[in-house]
Amino acid sequence: MNTLPIITLDEIKACLSEDDILSAVKEALISHGRGEVNSPPPGILQLDNPAVGECHIKYGHQKGADTFVVKIASGFRDNRNLGLSPNSGMMLVLSAQTGAPVCVLDDKGWLTDIRTAAAGALAAQAGAPDQVTTVGIIGTGEQARLQAQWACRLLGVKSVVVYGRNPQQVTKYINDMTGQGYEVRIAPDVQGLLAQCNLIITTTPSSKALVMKDEVQPGTHIVAMGTDNPGKQELDPALFEKAAVIMVDDLAQCVHHGDLGHAVRGGLIPEDQAISLGLVLAGKKPARQNARDITIADLTGIAAQDIAVASLVWKRKRGV
Amino acid sequence: MNTLPIITLDEIKACLSEDDILSAVKEALISHGRGEVNSPPPGILQLDNPAVGECHIKYGHQKGADTFVVKIASGFRDNRNLGLSPNSGMMLVLSAQTGAPVCVLDDKGWLTDIRTAAAGALAAQAGAPDQVTTVGIIGTGEQARLQAQWACRLLGVKSVVVYGRNPQQVTKYINDMTGQGYEVRIAPDVQGLLAQCNLIITTTPSSKALVMKDEVQPGTHIVAMGTDNPGKQELDPALFEKAAVIMVDDLAQCVHHGDLGHAVRGGLIPEDQAISLGLVLAGKKPARQNARDITIADLTGIAAQDIAVASLVWKRKRGV
Repeated sequence: MNTLPIITLDEIKACLSEDDILSAVKEALISHGRGEVNSPPPGILQLDNPAVGECHIKYGHQKGADTFVVKIASGFRDNRNLGLSPNSGMMLVLSAQTGAPVCVLDDKGWLTDIRTAAAGALAAQAGAPDQVTTVGIIGTGEQARLQAQWACRLLGVKSVVVYGRNPQQVTKYINDMTGQGYEVRIAPDVQGLLAQCNLIITTTPSSKALVMKDEVQPGTHIVAMGTDNPGKQELDPALFEKAAVIMVDDLAQCVHHGDLGHAVRGGLIPEDQAISLGLVLAGKKPARQNARDITIADLTGIAAQDIAVASLVWKRKRGV
Repeated sequence: MNTLPIITLDEIKACLSEDDILSAVKEALISHGRGEVNSPPPGILQLDNPAVGECHIKYGHQKGADTFVVKIASGFRDNRNLGLSPNSGMMLVLSAQTGAPVCVLDDKGWLTDIRTAAAGALAAQAGAPDQVTTVGIIGTGEQARLQAQWACRLLGVKSVVVYGRNPQQVTKYINDMTGQGYEVRIAPDVQGLLAQCNLIITTTPSSKALVMKDEVQPGTHIVAMGTDNPGKQELDPALFEKAAVIMVDDLAQCVHHGDLGHAVRGGLIPEDQAISLGLVLAGKKPARQNARDITIADLTGIAAQDIAVASLVWKRKRGV
């Protein structure tokens, strides 16, 4: 029997363009919205000894496709103390004809990072006000960089306002981003950031609300992508009551472990008030109706995105 | 960054003895019984287009260990038409310090097969009557072979009685097993098998009960390991009412997708009547009390077994 092929990170990066990724992730969100992806609830393993971290397992099958995908993504916050990224992982492509593994994508978590950034940018574009001149970013980690880059690309801007708790991380963020040609300003606090931006992307692992209802300007679109377990929170639950449109990548996940969950469990809104981001991207549901609407996209990351990027890598490697 | 190491099936087989596996699986069942393993419910993906199959994802962490494990196991019944085994899979070892993958065990499903056989044999031994001269096997697939071999080894017998629906598969089973030194007889039906065996292992993918309450002799021990989803069934639910002892590898799993589930959902017995096989193996719970007891071990396969064998391979490869 042959040994399973491993596709390295360099090979993966070499076979995908940004356009490929945006287009694959957009199709994935649409397919998921249409119910064409069979993806059971993700597995979540919380660890606390010897280190604190979590591992998320997302898996599923685009109905009719000849492969299915299992994705493993770990987040260990104290990795920074070891000089390592908090995020790591891998993806597995398996045959939907026989169940056998067909390849391992040793992407070191990169595909998860970029499919998350692509979804954030698509969600930003889907609810963006007409005039966006700068992207507001809360957080200073890997996604704070990627979300800014991918959203700026789709929105055609090069200006970012950032807020982070840790001044050293903020400085590093500004240096990294200005080095890549972005104009970056610092907001003194979240309130200050909300006062100067009408498009905000939240990327933190916060455990309590940062974006408060009364501080958000009319006409603002917020993409909340940091909250991915029930113990995390970035948005004031009351903001969901005030929002004209709430988009979700997956309703069940967002209710279970997204920011939306806090508002639904608190009885502030019924869960059926949220609409599918995929159906908005497909043109089947309207997003922003009015220039003064506050709109929210709550993203928890869905298996459909992983399936799309992993399958695309495998197709490219096979030359089909 | 280094590419993830892949450990091949040959390397895996070369570094584990049967004693290693039995001992690792026994410790795993005991640890699980004691609550020392953090293993959320397994993920199950059902596929039906282009082929019918299922993929089970089991994962978890032995508290305090420096690694955790994710196991992927597929079962695609029509693989036989392609000349392939229905079962395939792989295991992943990840660092519990950083979350990063540390190696891929390209075991082609072999570790799942043997850890399942080892647990079956331990469960057979745990409830076996004093005198067992032959092992009764229902089914003729891979587990029908492995369960017979491993149980015979632990019970010190070399005689098997087999029943299978498909005469060609039965003939092939007998040829394979006699070729390995076992004395194998055919039972004409399940009733006939139950009449001549007091230790039975069921290994089929049946969707309806095969082992009926009134056909089981007093003093029989039954290990039910074929049922691993709610649509499968091997034992008459009424048999659970009659059983003096019901052992389970994991109570929640057996209620959710084992044979026990049919009896509990049917209101025939309360689920707390079942006891942990691990606690029996640890000597903390009694199994058979009486020579005429009917006893059952219901096995669904637990992440602890996968963690134990995968971690052991990785330790051996690292030379620790």
